[in-house]
Amino acid sequence: MAPTPYKQLELEWQRLHAFGGALSLLRWDAAVMMPRGSADVRGEQLAAIETEQHALLTSPRVSRLLDRAQAGAAALDDWQRANLREMLRQRDHAIATPVSLISRLARATSVAEVKWAEAREKQDFNLFAPHLTEVLGLVRDKAQLMGQALNLSPYDALMDGFTPGVRSAEIDPVFRALSRRLPGLIREAIERQRNMQAQPISGKFTPGRQRALIVEVMKAFGFSFDRGRLDESDHPFTEGVAGDIRVTTKLDQGDPFKGLLAALHETGHVLYDLNVPREWRTQPVGKERGMALEESQALFMEMIVCRSRAFLTYLRPLLEKHFGVSGPEWEPDNLYRLLTQVRRSTIRVDADELTYPMHIVLRYGIEKDLLEGKLAVRDLPDAWNSGMQDRLEVTPGNAAEGCLQDVHWAHGAFGYFPSYAIGAVIAAQLFESMRAATPDLDQRIAAGQFSAVTGWLAANVHAEGARLAPQDLVQHATGKKLSAAVAIRYLEARYLEEAR
Amino acid sequence: MAPTPYKQLELEWQRLHAFGGALSLLRWDAAVMMPRGSADVRGEQLAAIETEQHALLTSPRVSRLLDRAQAGAAALDDWQRANLREMLRQRDHAIATPVSLISRLARATSVAEVKWAEAREKQDFNLFAPHLTEVLGLVRDKAQLMGQALNLSPYDALMDGFTPGVRSAEIDPVFRALSRRLPGLIREAIERQRNMQAQPISGKFTPGRQRALIVEVMKAFGFSFDRGRLDESDHPFTEGVAGDIRVTTKLDQGDPFKGLLAALHETGHVLYDLNVPREWRTQPVGKERGMALEESQALFMEMIVCRSRAFLTYLRPLLEKHFGVSGPEWEPDNLYRLLTQVRRSTIRVDADELTYPMHIVLRYGIEKDLLEGKLAVRDLPDAWNSGMQDRLEVTPGNAAEGCLQDVHWAHGAFGYFPSYAIGAVIAAQLFESMRAATPDLDQRIAAGQFSAVTGWLAANVHAEGARLAPQDLVQHATGKKLSAAVAIRYLEARYLEEAR
Repeated sequence: MAPTPYKQLELEWQRLHAFGGALSLLRWDAAVMMPRGSADVRGEQLAAIETEQHALLTSPRVSRLLDRAQAGAAALDDWQRANLREMLRQRDHAIATPVSLISRLARATSVAEVKWAEAREKQDFNLFAPHLTEVLGLVRDKAQLMGQALNLSPYDALMDGFTPGVRSAEIDPVFRALSRRLPGLIREAIERQRNMQAQPISGKFTPGRQRALIVEVMKAFGFSFDRGRLDESDHPFTEGVAGDIRVTTKLDQGDPFKGLLAALHETGHVLYDLNVPREWRTQPVGKERGMALEESQALFMEMIVCRSRAFLTYLRPLLEKHFGVSGPEWEPDNLYRLLTQVRRSTIRVDADELTYPMHIVLRYGIEKDLLEGKLAVRDLPDAWNSGMQDRLEVTPGNAAEGCLQDVHWAHGAFGYFPSYAIGAVIAAQLFESMRAATPDLDQRIAAGQFSAVTGWLAANVHAEGARLAPQDLVQHATGKKLSAAVAIRYLEARYLEEAR
Repeated sequence: MAPTPYKQLELEWQRLHAFGGALSLLRWDAAVMMPRGSADVRGEQLAAIETEQHALLTSPRVSRLLDRAQAGAAALDDWQRANLREMLRQRDHAIATPVSLISRLARATSVAEVKWAEAREKQDFNLFAPHLTEVLGLVRDKAQLMGQALNLSPYDALMDGFTPGVRSAEIDPVFRALSRRLPGLIREAIERQRNMQAQPISGKFTPGRQRALIVEVMKAFGFSFDRGRLDESDHPFTEGVAGDIRVTTKLDQGDPFKGLLAALHETGHVLYDLNVPREWRTQPVGKERGMALEESQALFMEMIVCRSRAFLTYLRPLLEKHFGVSGPEWEPDNLYRLLTQVRRSTIRVDADELTYPMHIVLRYGIEKDLLEGKLAVRDLPDAWNSGMQDRLEVTPGNAAEGCLQDVHWAHGAFGYFPSYAIGAVIAAQLFESMRAATPDLDQRIAAGQFSAVTGWLAANVHAEGARLAPQDLVQHATGKKLSAAVAIRYLEARYLEEAR
């Protein structure tokens, strides 16, 4: 008997999964291993496989199979139906944008990225402005077409490509609530921390020792070096697939925490990859549920778990073992102060947990205004600087510290930024529920029994794959709707009550 | 105006070239970087891209374009016509074997390889025999089908897949001539060397220092580390494409020459890759002309150039610089004796230049007999052992040192072995012509002016790409037909006259 249309689609998506894994490995290699001069060759290899993926996804054969599978959807179980829905979503996204627009955008963004780097280097927004204008025009066309095809506003259509199913209408109240509370909370936290300064740390943190510590901690969280690697790169990232995960971090010889926390941020991503249902790994329903959820897992690890007193209690003897350090400045209370210090910074990637969402709220407003034509590219620096002043009471010294600091817009990635802050909000909600379900959570983390953390996340978040919409997954895992309330409560507790 | 059919084919082969480069990188990663447990994932990625390549090569669209391009071939220039011929050759090879047979062979060889390793470990041929029988049966089917499609004998059809255009009828007289002269020459050389033993060397050859030496020598031969890497792996190899070459070697802390010579063997392959005409790099005519030619370039470097007194004169100060060694045992004459010692060995990969061809002649006869049904799998060990005794006067102590030593047959790679010895024969012919054209060759090598070597090879061999048949390329470069005469003259000179 011939396989059903649905089963045939599963086979096609197995191929897409294999192509995706190959692409991911090629990207990993480009960032970690590739000789400097070989970018042109790699670009052609990536383009050839991406073109193949796109051709497969938009082929008449796949569209016919999708139609027939939908007609027979009554015979499918829950997961299969969700899988079919995700297949359709991917096809709809792929087919909404004509190939000619995709390649114009690819060319424009590859030029814009170079010009952005140059403009940032020279702190001169004018060098970048015409290229951003061109990219923005093409992104607007794309958003328009996708919006029509998906029956969404242009900005929501772009966001849907990163975090499916989440709309501006749901994000706006969350960001409004954060904007109301955080500026005051930041002031109070800074005031409070002024009275209990952390003692500085020092020591010899060679790359080899840092690596050994990181490997030990990653293993404790369940990372298998039989099925994964840890390397170094300029920007920490995770590539690969569940059976062959490639994590990178960036080590700082003067600071043993930067590389560790970056690796643990990535380990949050990894655990998600590893714990989606194994039998669905090659299918779209067996992937993470979009960027906001992905970020939530990374921030959960890096910000909430691994900057907790409990985790630092676990870490103290390991720091002594690997770096030979001890003394009062290495006690959990001091390390906790050190790792939860609040500072007003102009730079997003250096921002702490408390100020970070304000950086995102600013970008969200600006990119929507740019897309909707309410803000002209030439007015971007002013809008940025006054927005920073309003939200964080700082003003960038130059464009490199201001609106030129992130590469996202040069890449054409409008609609991505909100994921970071929504991820943080979700992480706080998950933490509240995990804590309620696990009364001895702190003791178990302090004892290095991380299954208390990873098991709860696996069971309540990861096991659902992409079966539910992000908001429904939050509701499923926490019993509550997505909202800023829990995140604000969490931040108040950490920065006003806990701190001592 | 629409591109001509020929031009459309060039675009299709550009895609095949990009897929090929991606596959090569995935294989490099699997051997050098991949975590041990991830082979299953990598296997799926390789299979997905290989399937895509095969589908493209055998698609009705490509066949139609090939027909139309052939009809219009009068308008093509020499290189384009040669390129079209290579396209046809690749399509004919791909289309001759049904996909079902390819995947049965892939499954059978992947099991056979595991069983081969186990049998070799346990020195028990019987563990491997049934799997070799199965692989052999499938290879026979494939050879039959390919022979019919290409109008060749089954064995020649297999060989054509590795070294296009070379037939048994041309190899037989070469191997007969080698078999007549080499056994006597081996005896004479061993006798002669008995009277002038090399002094042993010793020193501290740390991996870091070996690597630094190898990098320096590779750079002197024109290897660009801006477009390539050197790593370590169990078996030295070259992967990648001309714009991003990945070489590996295997270092031995007790011997500074093994890793160096293995890397220089690979550098021979690399120079070929780099010096095919740049504008044809993505096309079949812009590749190396088959395995025998590829081996000739590697052996030319490893065996002829880099074991010469001239090269060792260049190397002596570098050995002192990197390892701090000096003294009479490090003088070129002694190193030359050390690196040209003739020994009767049961193991092919450990064999020296003089005994090596006999290992190949044995395998060539046996694999033809196996394929043609003149030798049964169960009789292989006896045939092997008596063949070794006849040709090299040694008998393997067990099957692991005998017919289980090579993986080729477990891989189904029948028809590959002759390339090694034909490559050695071609290398000697090229050397004779290069020497005649370059009177001061030794002085220039001794001075590290390797352009004398690489320039001649680039101009006379590499620049031709795959435009000519291998025999015609030999004729073109040397003015002589492929024959054993020059190789025998070269070996006699090196092992009877030069040696002192």
